[in-house]
Amino acid sequence: MAEDTIAILGGTGDQGLGLALRFCAAGREVVIGSRKEERALEAAETVGKQVPDARVAGRENGDATEGAGIVILSVPFEHTAGTVKAIRERLAPGQIVVSMGVPLATAVGGAAAHMIGVWQGSCAELVAGLVPDGVAVVSAFQNVSAHRLQTLSDPVECDVVVSGAKEPRARVMALCELVPGLRGVDGGPLANARIVESVTALLIGMNIRYKVADGIGVRFTGLPDA
Amino acid sequence: MAEDTIAILGGTGDQGLGLALRFCAAGREVVIGSRKEERALEAAETVGKQVPDARVAGRENGDATEGAGIVILSVPFEHTAGTVKAIRERLAPGQIVVSMGVPLATAVGGAAAHMIGVWQGSCAELVAGLVPDGVAVVSAFQNVSAHRLQTLSDPVECDVVVSGAKEPRARVMALCELVPGLRGVDGGPLANARIVESVTALLIGMNIRYKVADGIGVRFTGLPDA
Repeated sequence: MAEDTIAILGGTGDQGLGLALRFCAAGREVVIGSRKEERALEAAETVGKQVPDARVAGRENGDATEGAGIVILSVPFEHTAGTVKAIRERLAPGQIVVSMGVPLATAVGGAAAHMIGVWQGSCAELVAGLVPDGVAVVSAFQNVSAHRLQTLSDPVECDVVVSGAKEPRARVMALCELVPGLRGVDGGPLANARIVESVTALLIGMNIRYKVADGIGVRFTGLPDA
Repeated sequence: MAEDTIAILGGTGDQGLGLALRFCAAGREVVIGSRKEERALEAAETVGKQVPDARVAGRENGDATEGAGIVILSVPFEHTAGTVKAIRERLAPGQIVVSMGVPLATAVGGAAAHMIGVWQGSCAELVAGLVPDGVAVVSAFQNVSAHRLQTLSDPVECDVVVSGAKEPRARVMALCELVPGLRGVDGGPLANARIVESVTALLIGMNIRYKVADGIGVRFTGLPDA
């Protein structure tokens, strides 16, 4: 697998599939990962039907991980630690793992507009404690609406706050620019994922109160032009 | 004092003064509060110079509080509990107290881009535990740039997430609409202040990284038109 390959674990879910569609539409090579290879293959087929000439494959999570430059974790929060432990041996120094999970209270039977506390502070920091040395963890994509991602005809119109160490953070910010209407915003160190993840709960509550099926997005104003 | 009077305690500070200017420019009666009456009078004079026909007064915090329909707490987080305790006897059922404080780590000598944990969950909930029965607490205005507020010639261009019980929340959302470019967004129950307050720390870090003196603002996209 080439270093510019993007693996999306849990890419069979709404948000992961949306990212796969968008990155394929931008011409990037994507490997969709799932616990079961056949589900990953199905998702890859779905992407292939919507994006002509998509460079997309479907593999079991561990196989999808190996050799991919960027590995995006698009699994529900409660499956995060298990997924990372399962692929841990397949990760190698230089790879970037992107955490987009959110510790919503749904993980313990609560409401999606509530958070639960995570000992490490955030899902992203939990992931950072599980990956091998030399693998960078970056927090991103938590607040991008799956519906908007999947509607390829329209720009996504959302800012993505990207947090982590400088060099891998810049690489993930560049990834955002591949998607029309998505903008990567420098979110500083990984610990800021605590804030960005919680914004998801706020947006879920807003979607309910305002009855917005597409999902409300966030834009930062006053940023200098890129 | 009339019920539609807005008291701004700590209105001598940058953000409180900015709100006073904007509400006066919208024709509302404002009373600036301070621990020392003479400082409040000075601030009121500053407002009067910039806004012709401003209905503005300066009073000691307790005097400013009494009878005002809405009392905005614009004091640094570390002075929040002390200020509320000092005005507690002057509050009466039906009044709304607006919490705009943020538990930044500066309160304990840390960085402005870091938060400290508050037992009650947020500054707003801490305030809610201190006011008399029948006084509503609403969380708002944390993320509005003081610089933008004070530049009367330009719209503020920022969304204000307003959290609290339904009726007082609606009243504070209506207050936002008085200021050009400010929009009140329904932030649900008061506990969501935990999230909104922490966004301030994120924005402070962004202002530093992007060198934005005016202050970066937040806009939510996809909201239905008011």
